Amino acid sequence: MRDRECKYLQDFAEEPAGEREMLGSWMKLAAALVLGLTAFGPLHAGTLEVSSPDGNITVAVSDEGGHATYTVSYGGEVVMEPARLGLLFADHHGFEDGLEIRGTADVTTTDETWEQPWGERRLVRNHYNELRVGFIPKEGPARAMVVAFRVFDTGLGFRYELLPTEALAGDIRITDELTQFSIGGDADAWWTPSRQFNRYEYIYRTGKAAVVDDAHTPVTFRQPNGLHISIHEAALVDYSGMSLLALRPGSFEAELRAGSDGIKVHTKAPFKSPWRTIQIAPDAPGLINSDIILNLNEPNKLGDVSWVEPGKYVGIWWAMHIRERTWGNDGIHGATTEETKRYIDFAAEHGFSGVLVEGWNIGWDGDWFNNGELFNFTQAYPDFDIEELGAYALSKGVRLIGHHETSGNIANYEAQMEDAFDLYERVGVRQVKTGYVADAGDLVRYDDDGVKQYEWHDSQFQVGHHLRVVEAAAKRKISINAHEPVKDTGLRRTYPNWMTREGARGMEFNAWGTPPNPPEHISILAYTRMLSGPMDFTPGIFNLRPNEKPPVREDMQRGDASNRPQTTLAKQLALYVVLYSPLQMAADLPEHYEERMDAFQFIKDVEADWEDSIALQGEVGEYVAIARQGRESKEWFLGAVTDATPRELLIPLDFLEEGKSYTAQIYRDGANAHWDTNPYDYVIEEMQVTSASKLDAALASSGGIAVRFVPN
Amino acid sequence: MRDRECKYLQDFAEEPAGEREMLGSWMKLAAALVLGLTAFGPLHAGTLEVSSPDGNITVAVSDEGGHATYTVSYGGEVVMEPARLGLLFADHHGFEDGLEIRGTADVTTTDETWEQPWGERRLVRNHYNELRVGFIPKEGPARAMVVAFRVFDTGLGFRYELLPTEALAGDIRITDELTQFSIGGDADAWWTPSRQFNRYEYIYRTGKAAVVDDAHTPVTFRQPNGLHISIHEAALVDYSGMSLLALRPGSFEAELRAGSDGIKVHTKAPFKSPWRTIQIAPDAPGLINSDIILNLNEPNKLGDVSWVEPGKYVGIWWAMHIRERTWGNDGIHGATTEETKRYIDFAAEHGFSGVLVEGWNIGWDGDWFNNGELFNFTQAYPDFDIEELGAYALSKGVRLIGHHETSGNIANYEAQMEDAFDLYERVGVRQVKTGYVADAGDLVRYDDDGVKQYEWHDSQFQVGHHLRVVEAAAKRKISINAHEPVKDTGLRRTYPNWMTREGARGMEFNAWGTPPNPPEHISILAYTRMLSGPMDFTPGIFNLRPNEKPPVREDMQRGDASNRPQTTLAKQLALYVVLYSPLQMAADLPEHYEERMDAFQFIKDVEADWEDSIALQGEVGEYVAIARQGRESKEWFLGAVTDATPRELLIPLDFLEEGKSYTAQIYRDGANAHWDTNPYDYVIEEMQVTSASKLDAALASSGGIAVRFVPN
Repeated sequence: MRDRECKYLQDFAEEPAGEREMLGSWMKLAAALVLGLTAFGPLHAGTLEVSSPDGNITVAVSDEGGHATYTVSYGGEVVMEPARLGLLFADHHGFEDGLEIRGTADVTTTDETWEQPWGERRLVRNHYNELRVGFIPKEGPARAMVVAFRVFDTGLGFRYELLPTEALAGDIRITDELTQFSIGGDADAWWTPSRQFNRYEYIYRTGKAAVVDDAHTPVTFRQPNGLHISIHEAALVDYSGMSLLALRPGSFEAELRAGSDGIKVHTKAPFKSPWRTIQIAPDAPGLINSDIILNLNEPNKLGDVSWVEPGKYVGIWWAMHIRERTWGNDGIHGATTEETKRYIDFAAEHGFSGVLVEGWNIGWDGDWFNNGELFNFTQAYPDFDIEELGAYALSKGVRLIGHHETSGNIANYEAQMEDAFDLYERVGVRQVKTGYVADAGDLVRYDDDGVKQYEWHDSQFQVGHHLRVVEAAAKRKISINAHEPVKDTGLRRTYPNWMTREGARGMEFNAWGTPPNPPEHISILAYTRMLSGPMDFTPGIFNLRPNEKPPVREDMQRGDASNRPQTTLAKQLALYVVLYSPLQMAADLPEHYEERMDAFQFIKDVEADWEDSIALQGEVGEYVAIARQGRESKEWFLGAVTDATPRELLIPLDFLEEGKSYTAQIYRDGANAHWDTNPYDYVIEEMQVTSASKLDAALASSGGIAVRFVPN
Repeated sequence: MRDRECKYLQDFAEEPAGEREMLGSWMKLAAALVLGLTAFGPLHAGTLEVSSPDGNITVAVSDEGGHATYTVSYGGEVVMEPARLGLLFADHHGFEDGLEIRGTADVTTTDETWEQPWGERRLVRNHYNELRVGFIPKEGPARAMVVAFRVFDTGLGFRYELLPTEALAGDIRITDELTQFSIGGDADAWWTPSRQFNRYEYIYRTGKAAVVDDAHTPVTFRQPNGLHISIHEAALVDYSGMSLLALRPGSFEAELRAGSDGIKVHTKAPFKSPWRTIQIAPDAPGLINSDIILNLNEPNKLGDVSWVEPGKYVGIWWAMHIRERTWGNDGIHGATTEETKRYIDFAAEHGFSGVLVEGWNIGWDGDWFNNGELFNFTQAYPDFDIEELGAYALSKGVRLIGHHETSGNIANYEAQMEDAFDLYERVGVRQVKTGYVADAGDLVRYDDDGVKQYEWHDSQFQVGHHLRVVEAAAKRKISINAHEPVKDTGLRRTYPNWMTREGARGMEFNAWGTPPNPPEHISILAYTRMLSGPMDFTPGIFNLRPNEKPPVREDMQRGDASNRPQTTLAKQLALYVVLYSPLQMAADLPEHYEERMDAFQFIKDVEADWEDSIALQGEVGEYVAIARQGRESKEWFLGAVTDATPRELLIPLDFLEEGKSYTAQIYRDGANAHWDTNPYDYVIEEMQVTSASKLDAALASSGGIAVRFVPN
């Protein structure tokens, strides 16, 4: 019987999530098996363990007191106290107490390397030990829940799998996921609140874990012993997003986003939840040097994706944010044929592959924020000739980058989506930036009764919408860059055309945000939001005080003097290395770049696709230094940024190839640079280095350094 | 037609909420009327206004842009910017946009005085102007929502009323209430978080409104202009509790607590929501001197309630909190026949009317926190003879106070409730303290499928449970003092046997809370929690360092030195006046009172039922001074407390009867008193005063003063 159970659990593990329909007769078998199980004493009452390949991390899974719990140790010390696991349902008996561990205690090892079509590194090692723990309740109808644990050297993931039995037949409505995370109130925390209007777009909060009430993931902690822990999730498909809700100070419970009907997740057995991930590292850079989010996603489902093209782009975008142009067609319309040609010419001249154009389509002139149905995704404004511009761009070796702002009206967008992508495909567009500007919880759909309902950006509904968009786009060889998206959970592995997204406070807040992103923003982003995946932050603002210019029109008042990037210019360059995105914008206006072509050279040189990436040094909220090797050139690049505190970093260049010499092209803060008083003080210099060299990087207040290493 | 509409709306206003069943044929009529309305242009497109009787407060109600909004002005200045109103449903078209104001614009005035059977004042004036605004959507099936505004001199209340039409037929599931409150981010705020485990039992947070993410009500704000605003609700019946969720900094939306099925409220038309209340006062004491919560509740439904008896009590309770006794029967069981007799004797000797006994019934020996089904509410421990003790107490002119700890297992309690109250009625019990010690969101019920479900303490389910308990108790002339309750919304007016409750951090946290209640706790409670109604805070701890005593048994380790009431002894006395409760405990052990009978005299003298109450002076979080006149003796009492800052208050005694002279029996802090270093330094002195006198009250750090005024 033990073998049969084992086989049963293994079979289930292999079952692709989407093949529920094929499982009709399998359910009967499974039910019989589970019923059989209950006739035997528990195989593994007590505790099962699984450790990381290097032995540092151990997860102990227990059914003590009838509760499913897990405990995490690092280096032999318990670092996450026992925390509950479980699921509750609306109509079915759940998995909560009276639980017994059943099934195999075998730990299996996987060690494989796979290749990313694009990414922060080409080759990704997927090396983990797996333990699958079956929990069966002693009371109520026979049913089973498997919790699968995968433990890597850099953390762990676990997910729930529901086995199909009579007791779990029919539609399952999940009302609560009991997953808990024990961090400890004394840990330092960096987080954004999860229940407010602005989706993920908050200045990060810094404080003790004890004062965190609710938090979006990734949320990052540093325990008093210096251990860094970041909680997130992987492979969020057909489920709602998880945030953390304080259960007790420093102890958190998973909060699933409820749908408009109040139900958190609608599903059926068999099913698998997203992976709950716990990254663990002795130092802050260790969090960045982990691939567990990607590794816990399914492989590429799209086949040949050579049409997914990483690259750099410019666009008609910042001009609207600094109130020089408008999205709507009112005399200073940004998206005109003429202006777009100017950007195409600039892109072609300086080696950019794309030109984003926002405000090209009908819908921007009314109260679009509250009326997403105004948007027409196939009809351009009269002064924007999309067919001509598509051809013009291609003739210059550039492509238009499309734009679909939905204002959160999902119903309106989905109704037009196929036609919209057809249009873009026809004019040569390969990438579309989507937008969901709407208060969190205000995404519009209509239910079967025609009643307007509102959903959150991380609801099960919106999770599904994003994949519908990604799949519709893939049919046209179009890639997606989603703004105001659901958070990234590594689905770019499975859908490589879902290239990048926003999902945090980006550059735009520096144009009008009150307050703008503070000096420490990037030094927190790198260890929180960026752990989830690429971000279209849109770096590279060269005119650091855009609001000092007079308004271009009486009704176009700019923000006040506080609205500006709170960085030095050198830090703007460093962002291209520090913040990973396969689509990297040079966000400023061409005329601003033309004023400083020496510094602009770095943006021209830097790549957007990488052979490898290494986080070198840093502390959360203080500074971060990252090196990346270009996928195409194999040249190394380095970026480092600091918060408001100036610092001198001594960075060993041991990532360079041993025995080779390089010319380091250095873009750094000048001696008197300071983000507020002297942001334009930068120095460009060259230096000869080898892998034995150390780079002495002096960073000004909110400064940075960007380096290109050219092999001699 | 205008008259008919008017009549229709008025009829609905008069309709008792509970009489839905009688409305079968009325629905048809109503539907016809509403359909009729749509054939006419809007009667009142634009803005309707209603002001308070004194003209200070004006509410402007608008349908501008198709949105229902209200704006509040005070003294001609807008103090709450336009904020939305509306309701969304799962299966029915809701009230959100495209709304037009229809119906009467008449403002009606009510000015009546009613008598409380017990309370902080005997006579309550109910004086308000009312405006009832009908909103009808331009699109979708014909339906109507009325928002009724009642504006008092001390604030306002409004509620939603759904009119029965075809479009609202059947079960209505409310998924969202769109009510918003515009406070302004710069206001000071005092609040507790609404989404965490500890129900309402938090140390109050103090900060700007902009940093409030979520808050239980009452939540109190002070705008930069000094205006005090407190948000709460009245008459929470058959609905779920409302908390505030930040929509934008300083702007909040009502968040209704979802039930275990994810639905916030199940209802049917016609229905009336609880009143959303906005207390407004130019100074902090003005918030306390308002009766709008009570006035917005329905009159007494119970008829003769002369059996509801305010009074003071002692009990077997603090001994368990300071680890001298146990709830369970393990050798140092608190609730023994012998010990109870000792308390009965003490109560009788000193004029207390009740003796609370906790831990008398079977269920405390296991893991009761997680297993509420252990509790048996009719079976006493063998060493507790309930029949004998009931008779013994009565023979001494005292009554036992009953205790029902449910540990949140509502199913277990409801199954035994009738028998439990029968038992208590038989042994002469007139008051029962109920308890719902369980994590917020962990109240147990079983659904129709027998699946265990969990509810919040402020869910619609638990709101209903409390009233089931109160009604079952009333049948036995028993009154209820609920701990870990749903918040108070003034239902004591309708159900006068629901006398008091906990619902905030009480004295018990000073025995074991880490940290204990801080010195400013009472000075915040008075302006927040206490606005909602009486609190069984259980004051009067005389041994202010209980944890300095050696443990009574090896396994009964006390808290550390920080676990203590952070007050002077004089402040403990002042609590009897400052914190209103019709059941007022003398919470310490008899032997601790016997050490200081001079100070204990105030507790013996003070009343628990009042002819009148007046908040005299104070600032939120700093200090508060209140005078109350005894209902029976007509003697005045005064209590004042301060936070950690010592202060000297000059309090005019103009509440005393003019021309009379009084002996003021003063219990005050000594010159060297300090809550931490010298809490027992108190002075008892007498002084001759008249209504023209001013009391010079010197309050030590976390000190207080208590005064009895005896007419000469």
